[in-house]
Amino acid sequence: MLVVKKLLQYTPCDVSDALVKYGVSNGGYIPNLVKQSGPDSTVVGQAYTVLYAAKSDPRPAIKESYIDIIPQGAVLVMALAPELQLPHAPYVRVNNALYGGLMSTRASYRGAAGSVILGRIRDLDEHRELKYPVWSYGVGSTAPGPVVKVVGINVPVEIRVQLMEIDKDFETIKVNAGDYIVADKNGAVVLNQGHPKFHDILEYIPKRVAADTLVSEDIKKGKPAAESQKQRRANL
Amino acid sequence: MLVVKKLLQYTPCDVSDALVKYGVSNGGYIPNLVKQSGPDSTVVGQAYTVLYAAKSDPRPAIKESYIDIIPQGAVLVMALAPELQLPHAPYVRVNNALYGGLMSTRASYRGAAGSVILGRIRDLDEHRELKYPVWSYGVGSTAPGPVVKVVGINVPVEIRVQLMEIDKDFETIKVNAGDYIVADKNGAVVLNQGHPKFHDILEYIPKRVAADTLVSEDIKKGKPAAESQKQRRANL
Amino acid sequence: MLVVKKLLQYTPCDVSDALVKYGVSNGGYIPNLVKQSGPDSTVVGQAYTVLYAAKSDPRPAIKESYIDIIPQGAVLVMALAPELQLPHAPYVRVNNALYGGLMSTRASYRGAAGSVILGRIRDLDEHRELKYPVWSYGVGSTAPGPVVKVVGINVPVEIRVQLMEIDKDFETIKVNAGDYIVADKNGAVVLNQGHPKFHDILEYIPKRVAADTLVSEDIKKGKPAAESQKQRRANL
Repeated sequence: MLVVKKLLQYTPCDVSDALVKYGVSNGGYIPNLVKQSGPDSTVVGQAYTVLYAAKSDPRPAIKESYIDIIPQGAVLVMALAPELQLPHAPYVRVNNALYGGLMSTRASYRGAAGSVILGRIRDLDEHRELKYPVWSYGVGSTAPGPVVKVVGINVPVEIRVQLMEIDKDFETIKVNAGDYIVADKNGAVVLNQGHPKFHDILEYIPKRVAADTLVSEDIKKGKPAAESQKQRRANL
Repeated sequence: MLVVKKLLQYTPCDVSDALVKYGVSNGGYIPNLVKQSGPDSTVVGQAYTVLYAAKSDPRPAIKESYIDIIPQGAVLVMALAPELQLPHAPYVRVNNALYGGLMSTRASYRGAAGSVILGRIRDLDEHRELKYPVWSYGVGSTAPGPVVKVVGINVPVEIRVQLMEIDKDFETIKVNAGDYIVADKNGAVVLNQGHPKFHDILEYIPKRVAADTLVSEDIKKGKPAAESQKQRRANL
Repeated sequence: MLVVKKLLQYTPCDVSDALVKYGVSNGGYIPNLVKQSGPDSTVVGQAYTVLYAAKSDPRPAIKESYIDIIPQGAVLVMALAPELQLPHAPYVRVNNALYGGLMSTRASYRGAAGSVILGRIRDLDEHRELKYPVWSYGVGSTAPGPVVKVVGINVPVEIRVQLMEIDKDFETIKVNAGDYIVADKNGAVVLNQGHPKFHDILEYIPKRVAADTLVSEDIKKGKPAAESQKQRRANL
């Protein structure tokens, strides 16, 4: 919880700056999510993952109701099996919504921190009335039941996204149960719990934020950005 | 009009729940539309369809002005010929806007219920000032005249969307003139006028909404979602 | 500056109408941009272009800080090398943000008119607090440094977009340094400085706007749109 409390003071952009410093060139960013509801402040929590697959998938449907066991403080990270994902919009092959208002009502009751849905959601008004934070790729109106089933809870999930290499179709971002999710209107960042420099990353964040606050002040006084960035970030 | 009056009390999500019950696994959802203007409440009307094709299309341009004959209470559903549609964003091959402020001004005067444009629109401020509801895939600045022409009014229109099967490129959703369109910030649903269970669907909606209102209350009191859903929906 | 002052009275839609009149069938529209910050009014300025390429690109990185030399009144137009662009969403292969809050802080200090980023941006709150106008394809959280470098300032930039021809992958829109950019919530339009009919275009805009204002008034009084458009635009 100390980690969560620390991260709540920063933004996903701040976390990405620290991840870049420690070798993560994409800054842990999970692209293409839209903030659909919830307050303006940063949301932080450890990932509680739910994996959906096609009803025809050989794996059995999980009997438990994932939402009834979501831990307090967790961020729900819900993804489709990789073959149902697309690196281009609408980012999923499934036009049914994966998640809706009753799920946020229950998540909110159980004290979850937020829901990051790598798919469509429905019932926009309900999430907003609850002031419960939800991110999604898009919206929908139809429940998931007719086309997909839950096949995993707290399993690692893989997210297919565009990559710079022209001869490959996609890159995969992995989210493990327990990884830290930091999200706001800029989107969501995953901070791998097992990153070998985890504590260095946490310690770097406030130093970098302090330096960049000074850069911002310098620029507002007329100093060139490049000069100020060089000076203020010199010891980082 | 009785059907419209009934549906106005519900949301597209409610209609989709009923369609799923009667075998429509996508719940009639027309994906990827963005609500661009109009009040927060649900919009309902029978589809008045307009089909645009490339100027090079062998079909002649229709001489009549589609907007000058839009019926009172109708929802304009405007689509491009299928070969100009894409299952991925921006969802159309046409960067010109299909529809603009003067069209909403006329539609509003004639008492149309709203416009669902499967393409780009322009003049965002004008639709908003009119408080006339418009949905579209995206925005633009350029009139349609230089690149497309109207080739059909009140003909069936086909909408190409993503589908779950990996070996096919797209699935087609059909909207016929007279089908019911129910739309809000979650997007638009088509309720086929000729659905063999049309009246059962209409009767199911209020029962399901009543049950789910109780589920929501149960959850807010701490009852697990799965248990409450099972009980409250038992007789549906 | 007289041109800018003139264009500030109109919208991108008005400019596109004039460009169509003079043979530009796409109306100069740069599709798929989202307005992320800044006031509601139209933004106009001459393009100051910045070109990013992959770090592995054979061209050397430019040493100067592009933002420290942005001219007063300019609109920053930032693009990726064509091979890093996509004609479909997310429109770029790069998940890192190209542009962030410190850059808008400096641009704002130097009196730039706005920033049109053909890629992702980060720090949404900072641009909004500055009331500095920014457009982008999407958002991000990670700085560009680890993956791309600036390889050109005030070079022509090419933007890959969808086109109607089914057998081609994309069409290219060109923006030269000094071209006029006119942008609002409908997106951004480029008015080529070297268009052979540049002054005719500028003169056409107010006449067309005046005519269409009368059309709007006619329609509000009940006149059919087609009839009014024919009459009011007869001498244009």
